[in-house]
Amino acid sequence: MRDTERDSAVIKAVEWKNGRVRMLDQTLLPHEEVFLELTDYRDIAGAIVGMKVRGAPAIGIAAAYGLVLGAHEIETDSKEELLAGLKTISDALAATRPTAVNLFWALDRMNRVAKAGDSADGIRASLIEEALALETETEQAERSLSRHGAELIEDGFTVLTHCNTGALAAGGYGTALGIIRMAWEQGKKIHVYTDETRPLLQGARLTAWELHKSGIPFTLITDSMAGHFMARGEIDALIVGADRIALNGDTANKIGTYSLAVLAKETGVPFYVAAPTSTVDPSLASGGEIPIEERDPEEVTHIQGIPMAPEGTEAANPAFDVTPHRYISAIITEMGVMREPYSESLAGLSAGLQEA
Amino acid sequence: MRDTERDSAVIKAVEWKNGRVRMLDQTLLPHEEVFLELTDYRDIAGAIVGMKVRGAPAIGIAAAYGLVLGAHEIETDSKEELLAGLKTISDALAATRPTAVNLFWALDRMNRVAKAGDSADGIRASLIEEALALETETEQAERSLSRHGAELIEDGFTVLTHCNTGALAAGGYGTALGIIRMAWEQGKKIHVYTDETRPLLQGARLTAWELHKSGIPFTLITDSMAGHFMARGEIDALIVGADRIALNGDTANKIGTYSLAVLAKETGVPFYVAAPTSTVDPSLASGGEIPIEERDPEEVTHIQGIPMAPEGTEAANPAFDVTPHRYISAIITEMGVMREPYSESLAGLSAGLQEA
Repeated sequence: MRDTERDSAVIKAVEWKNGRVRMLDQTLLPHEEVFLELTDYRDIAGAIVGMKVRGAPAIGIAAAYGLVLGAHEIETDSKEELLAGLKTISDALAATRPTAVNLFWALDRMNRVAKAGDSADGIRASLIEEALALETETEQAERSLSRHGAELIEDGFTVLTHCNTGALAAGGYGTALGIIRMAWEQGKKIHVYTDETRPLLQGARLTAWELHKSGIPFTLITDSMAGHFMARGEIDALIVGADRIALNGDTANKIGTYSLAVLAKETGVPFYVAAPTSTVDPSLASGGEIPIEERDPEEVTHIQGIPMAPEGTEAANPAFDVTPHRYISAIITEMGVMREPYSESLAGLSAGLQEA
Repeated sequence: MRDTERDSAVIKAVEWKNGRVRMLDQTLLPHEEVFLELTDYRDIAGAIVGMKVRGAPAIGIAAAYGLVLGAHEIETDSKEELLAGLKTISDALAATRPTAVNLFWALDRMNRVAKAGDSADGIRASLIEEALALETETEQAERSLSRHGAELIEDGFTVLTHCNTGALAAGGYGTALGIIRMAWEQGKKIHVYTDETRPLLQGARLTAWELHKSGIPFTLITDSMAGHFMARGEIDALIVGADRIALNGDTANKIGTYSLAVLAKETGVPFYVAAPTSTVDPSLASGGEIPIEERDPEEVTHIQGIPMAPEGTEAANPAFDVTPHRYISAIITEMGVMREPYSESLAGLSAGLQEA
């Protein structure tokens, strides 16, 4: 496996193809690779809610294409009618999931382009152009942040990650898993510990699938084992993604991330967050204001539809938690590696973002 | 539910009945309640390996009854022949699981009784008597430690627990879950958060089943959510069981316990260990020497026999971890609540144990 060319095949979670949105149904992985071809924005919204597509950058791209589909569905030559219709569709897409800010960032960007259009047809044309650009830029940002992050990964490192932050979650390369992949492609000897990531098992199903496909050696563990391996000195670094980053560096990410960050600090292991700058929410001073999605308790009481707990069992299912910035060794973006004080390093980024 | 009489039905994980060992097959819970009737010590050993019976105190009792069955299988009037046969059987029972010390403690106690016997039949009679006494004393110790522990649980507390430490894991009452049950039976308003406890889901399957049966209100969470709820101030105390406690207080318990202890310390929540004194290993100065069982990786890659990860995925499966004593607020035994310095408080217990 180590002898093969280290050129990972590109996986596109979501892309525009022949006037349709082509999407890999991630709920069926790793056992079935089924591509959906969607032409209705309502199906895009449904796919985001049902997590057929997931991962902060990927749902931003999916929502952008959703708006393109919506613009074609609204049959009008009136710019005003089109914009009014797009508002409704944009609201429906924004209502799918509350935590990842990339969704709102992508829709804002698309809506700004729409408003700047001269005619209904002009808007439709500029929306598809913008969505394609957004996808391309997202993947470029991932490759760039992965290069920055790979400098922190030394030859021989064992890296622990949580959830899925690979090409499946993103624009085609990945964030935290992109960094791991980049270090591997640079020829470094890497071993990955991947948390299974209950309740939806994105680590066991998706990260394991990507690592397996790429030939990167890895060990699957339950979420409860991570601290044990850190305490035994078997982990050199942790890298996770992010769904929303406040200006002080507080980071919302998949449930379990906060626990990993505390354990990393306690055991002296560096804890890195990797995300494109579109994940920084310039409207939030700190993480306490980030809305945390509460999902169906059945995701906890059942596994792949099979009941585990006694009938009638109540469960909590917060999909994310917030890691205070003091636990985060660095935030790795396409513009470089940001360190404390994040209120300064991220403010610089944010100023750049707001100008853009 | 709160209006019913707070008198929890006794559940016997394992007991002696009509010359057989009656055992609830815990691998089938919560969906099926199947009692096995075992007459061959090899089936007892197999049930321990296969975790049909599990929990440190319960496997001690099961092993004791296994030796009783073995003594009846050896057809001899010679005391020496019987003792030689019992040695082989005892070794087979001891080889089932390496971490919980109660198993070895129970077998040592049984073997001491056997050696003190006058004749083969006398030994057989004294072995059943000793096993019954061991079961009774174990349950009494659980009730006693539960009373001590319940003093630490205030009215209105929300308590988080991990794995299963109820009647199913023990002599009929429970350790950590026994304390919760005792506080509830005392009329205190209690809410329990129970970790599902991957990989084998003892929390979702067994603790939820016991709490549901008792009418104690609870919320099931994934292991990765515990830290999030502690950080939000929703947990007043953590209580877990133990599989082996070294003389300095270092405690081996179900994988994930160490992480909970670190998170409890970080968030200022008291972290209690509950175990009968038979869980203290007087031969170990510290936890580094406790052998950690590594179980079949398929317990991680599969859930209830269904593959979750891609075929060929490698997984680690340490069944336990070790929590250093500095994270433990108190160790609750039938002889009282032990605090730091454990090297003194547990040494007192241990001296008493060795005399007994």
